[in-house]
Amino acid sequence: MNRQTGLMQMVGTDGGLMRFGPDSPLRLDSGARLDDLEIAYRTYGKLNAERSNAVLVCHALTGDQHLASEHPVTGKPGWWSRVVGPGLPLDPARYFIICSNVVGGCMGTTGPSSIDPVTGRAYGLSFPMITIADMVRAQAMLIDALGIETLFAAVGGSMGGMQVLQWAADFPQRLFSAVCIAAAPRHSAQNIAFHEVGRQAIMADPDWRGGDYAHLGVRPEKGLAVARMAAHITYLSEPALQRKFGRELQRDGLSWGFDADFQVESYLRHQGASFVDRFDANSYLYITRALDYFDLAAGHGGVLAEAFRGARDVRFCVLSFTSDWLYPTPESRSIVRALNAAGCRASFVEIETDKGHDAFFLDEPVMKASLGGFLDSAAHARGLP
Amino acid sequence: MNRQTGLMQMVGTDGGLMRFGPDSPLRLDSGARLDDLEIAYRTYGKLNAERSNAVLVCHALTGDQHLASEHPVTGKPGWWSRVVGPGLPLDPARYFIICSNVVGGCMGTTGPSSIDPVTGRAYGLSFPMITIADMVRAQAMLIDALGIETLFAAVGGSMGGMQVLQWAADFPQRLFSAVCIAAAPRHSAQNIAFHEVGRQAIMADPDWRGGDYAHLGVRPEKGLAVARMAAHITYLSEPALQRKFGRELQRDGLSWGFDADFQVESYLRHQGASFVDRFDANSYLYITRALDYFDLAAGHGGVLAEAFRGARDVRFCVLSFTSDWLYPTPESRSIVRALNAAGCRASFVEIETDKGHDAFFLDEPVMKASLGGFLDSAAHARGLP
Repeated sequence: MNRQTGLMQMVGTDGGLMRFGPDSPLRLDSGARLDDLEIAYRTYGKLNAERSNAVLVCHALTGDQHLASEHPVTGKPGWWSRVVGPGLPLDPARYFIICSNVVGGCMGTTGPSSIDPVTGRAYGLSFPMITIADMVRAQAMLIDALGIETLFAAVGGSMGGMQVLQWAADFPQRLFSAVCIAAAPRHSAQNIAFHEVGRQAIMADPDWRGGDYAHLGVRPEKGLAVARMAAHITYLSEPALQRKFGRELQRDGLSWGFDADFQVESYLRHQGASFVDRFDANSYLYITRALDYFDLAAGHGGVLAEAFRGARDVRFCVLSFTSDWLYPTPESRSIVRALNAAGCRASFVEIETDKGHDAFFLDEPVMKASLGGFLDSAAHARGLP
Repeated sequence: MNRQTGLMQMVGTDGGLMRFGPDSPLRLDSGARLDDLEIAYRTYGKLNAERSNAVLVCHALTGDQHLASEHPVTGKPGWWSRVVGPGLPLDPARYFIICSNVVGGCMGTTGPSSIDPVTGRAYGLSFPMITIADMVRAQAMLIDALGIETLFAAVGGSMGGMQVLQWAADFPQRLFSAVCIAAAPRHSAQNIAFHEVGRQAIMADPDWRGGDYAHLGVRPEKGLAVARMAAHITYLSEPALQRKFGRELQRDGLSWGFDADFQVESYLRHQGASFVDRFDANSYLYITRALDYFDLAAGHGGVLAEAFRGARDVRFCVLSFTSDWLYPTPESRSIVRALNAAGCRASFVEIETDKGHDAFFLDEPVMKASLGGFLDSAAHARGLP
């Protein structure tokens, strides 16, 4: 496939790398632009003849395009294998499912660890700041290049849900339906505060080298691990942590030292240590910043409903989890209220679970049933078999 | 004052430094002992002739003995100046108020930054691990040395509240009343997780040098600042952060960079930066560990009520704050249930506030009224004028 706006390379039947050159730059909210942009993506299933069955799944902060297939670094199953697959709500036999690494990321799409063609070195902090809207604009370029005019659905959780909302605000005519899970229409002061702790942890690591670590052959692994540990606590609920770990010890008795005495310490250390193998510290800085900058109403006179004025024909599904304290249910309710005020059709389910924000990745039958039911109904309306 | 168990030095009318030598070692829960112990303390008011008006205030994780007088490092008012003073619930005209720096601390009491008399160098990680019970045992030695048999009250919030509970378990016959504010009978998995993030941030700082930074003339300031930032978020409620800062910017417009764009970022950075001026990183490690090890029921067959079996004659007051998510109200309720089960008299007030855990330090009229009313009533029962 080859269109005027994109040149696919290294393409398989299930994705590839789309390159955009100076002819089709990505214009960024900051005023900067990326004249050389590569977008790494995966697909599952086949685009039908009517090009009406495309689903874009938007990934979360530390997610990537490896949605339902083995992760090339960790060897683990894709992050949404419980939702995308045969017989699951997003079935590749029915839909053409696309997931692309966000701009600013580190799994193949251009980001701060990419080589700046001007200098021949990794961008580091010379990479321009990005926003959620920039991520979405890059996805729209990818969709264009794949020859898709209208998405059957945009689906995402957490930061992915924010991208879905941004799609509805910026490209409503290109959406048939939209699913926003465990997200918020803007970052709260507490959200920003936790991200700032993570950024300071990374920047405190002397191996960060002002962001120039890549060509110096070092990596701020300790700082990134601490950032991940702090963030990880916000992904889990207090009751889930208590149920899973409580005060259980690693060994019989206390060490009377600073080893990981408690299982929860060992678990967190593992989360930090394994994260640095698959994620780039500068990408973490850029993407957390994009999240902190996110405030969908701000671009619409401070009135969230105004963001959805053009989306009256889009079918929305909003899902939240009772124990999510990162983006708690009131945030989802404010989205639903704005959709209602804008005259959009929105269904909303608050799912009872103690698993916290990460319930989105886990085996949550009600989430799967809600998502499956909503998509079935929309597929019927869209005339998909 | 000079008793067999302690030798007061540098004593003023309002406190001093109490030294305990090998004749009266502090035996620690770990099995180790401190043969040389100094306890730095402050007092306010005068001990009456009956020695019946002594109040011990126990400080929180990063608190110290400077309760109601200018802090020698920061120059700020004492941390509980809103509660201790003329006309306030703890009035020095009525009570002899004592506050000592905990063992393991860094404001004069022996801790990891003290000089080990054996090596002539700062202890660092060779300092023995301490527990909440060890802190209380040291306080009891101080009280002995001050010639006080029975405290009119032990009062504390957060870690101070845990010490109060430990007093009730270990020295009930030496307590007339006990006030436990915004505390918990044990550290939860989430509490431990946040502390572990802080410890990892400190230990990731290359200037920590395995804990040996003191005699190398460096300090792990960046790591300690990150630890403080992460912890500070847990002291505030999400609504309070939102009300105080929301998404307010530092300047007009975004910086499109990693400067502190949002006021909440600037506030957190300030919290981190100012903390390192007054606190020692190793003390932070030791005291957070003491908190994580705290589980009052564990030493009593797992039954919290058993810890209070000897405290039937002690009058208890338990206070919690609705928006405290560090030690939320259900933790206080579990304390009250155990006190009831043990046959102790306990009054309990859950105070409605959006200020989070730190409400304890702030101007909370209901807290002051509850505390004042409880102490008045107890003073009447004790025959204090």
